Amino acid sequence: MNAGFIGLGNMGAGMADNLLRAGHHVTVYNRTPGRAEALIAAGAHPAASIAAACQGDAVITMLANDAAVESVVLGQDGVAASLKPGAVHVSSSTIGVALSRHLTGTHADAGQHFVAAPVFGRPEAAAAGMLFVVAAGDADSVRMAAPLLDAIGQKTFVVSDVPEAANLVKLSGNFLIAAVIESLGEALALVAKGGVDRMQYIELLTSSMFSAPVYKTYGGLIARGQFAPAGFAAPLGHKDINLVQAAAEELHVPLPLASLIHDRFLTLFAHGGDRLDWSAIGQLAALDAGITAA
Amino acid sequence: MNAGFIGLGNMGAGMADNLLRAGHHVTVYNRTPGRAEALIAAGAHPAASIAAACQGDAVITMLANDAAVESVVLGQDGVAASLKPGAVHVSSSTIGVALSRHLTGTHADAGQHFVAAPVFGRPEAAAAGMLFVVAAGDADSVRMAAPLLDAIGQKTFVVSDVPEAANLVKLSGNFLIAAVIESLGEALALVAKGGVDRMQYIELLTSSMFSAPVYKTYGGLIARGQFAPAGFAAPLGHKDINLVQAAAEELHVPLPLASLIHDRFLTLFAHGGDRLDWSAIGQLAALDAGITAA
Amino acid sequence: MNAGFIGLGNMGAGMADNLLRAGHHVTVYNRTPGRAEALIAAGAHPAASIAAACQGDAVITMLANDAAVESVVLGQDGVAASLKPGAVHVSSSTIGVALSRHLTGTHADAGQHFVAAPVFGRPEAAAAGMLFVVAAGDADSVRMAAPLLDAIGQKTFVVSDVPEAANLVKLSGNFLIAAVIESLGEALALVAKGGVDRMQYIELLTSSMFSAPVYKTYGGLIARGQFAPAGFAAPLGHKDINLVQAAAEELHVPLPLASLIHDRFLTLFAHGGDRLDWSAIGQLAALDAGITAA
Amino acid sequence: MNAGFIGLGNMGAGMADNLLRAGHHVTVYNRTPGRAEALIAAGAHPAASIAAACQGDAVITMLANDAAVESVVLGQDGVAASLKPGAVHVSSSTIGVALSRHLTGTHADAGQHFVAAPVFGRPEAAAAGMLFVVAAGDADSVRMAAPLLDAIGQKTFVVSDVPEAANLVKLSGNFLIAAVIESLGEALALVAKGGVDRMQYIELLTSSMFSAPVYKTYGGLIARGQFAPAGFAAPLGHKDINLVQAAAEELHVPLPLASLIHDRFLTLFAHGGDRLDWSAIGQLAALDAGITAA
Repeated sequence: MNAGFIGLGNMGAGMADNLLRAGHHVTVYNRTPGRAEALIAAGAHPAASIAAACQGDAVITMLANDAAVESVVLGQDGVAASLKPGAVHVSSSTIGVALSRHLTGTHADAGQHFVAAPVFGRPEAAAAGMLFVVAAGDADSVRMAAPLLDAIGQKTFVVSDVPEAANLVKLSGNFLIAAVIESLGEALALVAKGGVDRMQYIELLTSSMFSAPVYKTYGGLIARGQFAPAGFAAPLGHKDINLVQAAAEELHVPLPLASLIHDRFLTLFAHGGDRLDWSAIGQLAALDAGITAA
Repeated sequence: MNAGFIGLGNMGAGMADNLLRAGHHVTVYNRTPGRAEALIAAGAHPAASIAAACQGDAVITMLANDAAVESVVLGQDGVAASLKPGAVHVSSSTIGVALSRHLTGTHADAGQHFVAAPVFGRPEAAAAGMLFVVAAGDADSVRMAAPLLDAIGQKTFVVSDVPEAANLVKLSGNFLIAAVIESLGEALALVAKGGVDRMQYIELLTSSMFSAPVYKTYGGLIARGQFAPAGFAAPLGHKDINLVQAAAEELHVPLPLASLIHDRFLTLFAHGGDRLDWSAIGQLAALDAGITAA
Repeated sequence: MNAGFIGLGNMGAGMADNLLRAGHHVTVYNRTPGRAEALIAAGAHPAASIAAACQGDAVITMLANDAAVESVVLGQDGVAASLKPGAVHVSSSTIGVALSRHLTGTHADAGQHFVAAPVFGRPEAAAAGMLFVVAAGDADSVRMAAPLLDAIGQKTFVVSDVPEAANLVKLSGNFLIAAVIESLGEALALVAKGGVDRMQYIELLTSSMFSAPVYKTYGGLIARGQFAPAGFAAPLGHKDINLVQAAAEELHVPLPLASLIHDRFLTLFAHGGDRLDWSAIGQLAALDAGITAA
Repeated sequence: MNAGFIGLGNMGAGMADNLLRAGHHVTVYNRTPGRAEALIAAGAHPAASIAAACQGDAVITMLANDAAVESVVLGQDGVAASLKPGAVHVSSSTIGVALSRHLTGTHADAGQHFVAAPVFGRPEAAAAGMLFVVAAGDADSVRMAAPLLDAIGQKTFVVSDVPEAANLVKLSGNFLIAAVIESLGEALALVAKGGVDRMQYIELLTSSMFSAPVYKTYGGLIARGQFAPAGFAAPLGHKDINLVQAAAEELHVPLPLASLIHDRFLTLFAHGGDRLDWSAIGQLAALDAGITAA
């Protein structure tokens, strides 16, 4: 396909590269042009503007947050204003349900297709084309986007014909990771105060019942008290929990564990932790217990 | 070794069988004698009383709860009264920290060795000798118990020279599982009210980031609303959370997520759910959200 | 003083009437003109537009929520555009801290004075001039507003020279009332399930340690399960808790009890309770306990 | 009446004194004899033992906690063993529901009457005979106790014919006070971080909607950060919340606010606050917000 790609951060660069490898004709745009160089060397076409990246049959956006998506998609000469009727916008950014709904309406008004397709996975998985893609949109739109989604991920889950449902699923996944962090934080505080070695405890858990990578990654960080440099900064985690809570508010779904996690972030920020990795909320149970985290 | 085994329930029967397979001389006792038959057919020696099972170098107890352990170990003609000095009692039951400490003192007073060695794993893992064993006790005692522990599990983690630490670790593990149930319950309530299919959602989670068996098992149960028959009954889960909270109380470790889970159990019981699997607390977020669980 | 008054609801009508009684020259405006009639009969001058109510030395606004204040104050031909330089706007509405800050800046840019002066008290207190006024603003502005504040309330508390602080105090007061509702809801669930009569229990509490009117009012409503018609509708209570949480978010102050109350509102709405009085969240503890509220 | 009185602490001394003033024949016993002197000077008869204080028609006990009541009432030569059949034991101590039920059974077995009659009020109210008495027991027993209850309190509320219900009501009252402390702690953290003076804030609240003494007392303590010397020590408050939770556990009544308060006590103790007044949990919200309490 002839597709544009906007947003060449740690995730986007790998995704765009896999589009190239799959044989697509890819036009790339990034606010900071330097990030496009390696992709251009690999065969991508440079775009000098957002509009220039929107001249093909599809455009994928992979941006940092709601504000960036609003600016890039809804701004003057943005994606919505530039994409031709009948083309498809694939939004892979982790954004809120309300913004996704707004995009759905805007693209429908413009006769464009829209697919929300956030991804699960870290930069290494993006580079390897091993992401898991959560997609939602009407059947025609999803069918159009499929060759692109196949290129960036190892598997695509189509969860709904309403785009925002995919964003809800993505946000809920980040909530579940935060829940792992909170639960490990509490368990580590308890056993550490009871005299058990933190690292051995995490090794025990992750070599038995809790073998998922998320327990290894975050368990290790909390056990070692190693929260800098941030792999995923606390304010981003906080933002995602806020988006989960906004969706839950609208749907009238009380989420007491999300409330607890939200309050943990406020405590972290009140103590100057806004530069730390989001797993730093996992040390707060230990601090409440009067012990240092590691 | 010449070892007794007391408590031939779903877990204990498999553990005793693996002692036999490893070549140990095993004397078995169960309150309900019928449960010993298969083991006797496989070469175990029957004991007519607790005391009769305590004549060897070691005895393992695998009982349902604190009350059973108190009765069997501390009761008249119980383990503590019957075991010879220098022999070792291996307590694999999931019991509270306070009782474990009591047992430690009692056995020390009697010149006996004591190892707390609770296990992670389900009956199938017990039958296959694939349990994970969490052991604690002084070095001599643990060394004595090692051949038995090797026979019942695939790996032994020695976490402390104070027996109760092993019980704390075991309890914390059950807390972590309950945390998985609660977090999945909240996430499922959210995405289901947002129109996403529950089973597809669990499949998505468990084939990507949350690949640990605990997510598959409990996610499936909650998504299907299948809480009977109980694999692990809610009152047992409640009891374990209470034991976690009792340990946390003593150590002064506030555990807000444990408090939330505890309150979920009370809600479940208030609505007649005491016969259900403990994963039934995972449907309460959906009920709060005004939807049925599945 | 020559003052305008905008917003003649249950609270505003009584406040404007007390301005008249104190001898002020009052020009009144309400979106629904009929509500002004009694005041005009009592000597107030009718204004045909917001702008017409802003020609004096001061204008008081008493509106339902942030959206109404945004529209009336910041809209085309609104208060900010109409008030003459040097005149004072007294905002008595219960609004968010962020909007109050916005108004502060807007009025400063226009060379106008601004005082945030939300009130504590119900419509009867407003009619009797017995409100408690929480005021904040720079000293000059507060001095200008003082004769008006004296007329509407029995006492004015000047809490800061930054207007938004008064709004924060007002919102925190509504949080405290919601905390009373939640605590009474839990206590009533407990004693009722223990066989104690709800109404006698409230009588006992309020004739001894908990003699404040808020316990009598809300205790009675919860004990009787009398949540309709709404004196203060649940969505308004929810909105105020959301504003408290927004302020706490910005200040990095975790408020776990506010989080709990917030989740209660979502549960209430999920079960169709959006027409009920906000004290209806006080029945949810009883419902969790498997009993009906009254 | 001819009544014994056991337990002459800050509360009991005043209560016994009021029995004397009402013309009753009072025999007093205290573990530390010195505390009885003033009462003996005022006309009370000294008892050299618990049994000696149990020779009349009634005996009132006013002791520190469950352990003291167990020892004094159920111990060898205790109240239950010494009181004559047909006489009445009035238990005014703040004890748990389970112990109250135990006492009910023990006294019934011995042919004695039993009334649970815990009180609301501080030592000054006890001295002035202005306590509020919460009584429960069968009608005959309550009738027997009435003259004594009339003498110690300004009003008696008979809440049930089952004694333990009175204890439940008393415990729930302490929960409600703790809820006031928690809610004030959160509100003070919020407004203080927003620049409002803590003491003025409490004055504002308590001179308007929150006029109950409990808000004045505890609001002042938290606003000033004045937690020593302890009027009611944190471990006693913690114990009462534990008793509330034990009652709620048995009745299957989830109390999330009680859980939050309970966790606050653990945090307080983890940081060495076990000598402070229980209102010290009201500073924890401020500490979470990164500010000192006062």
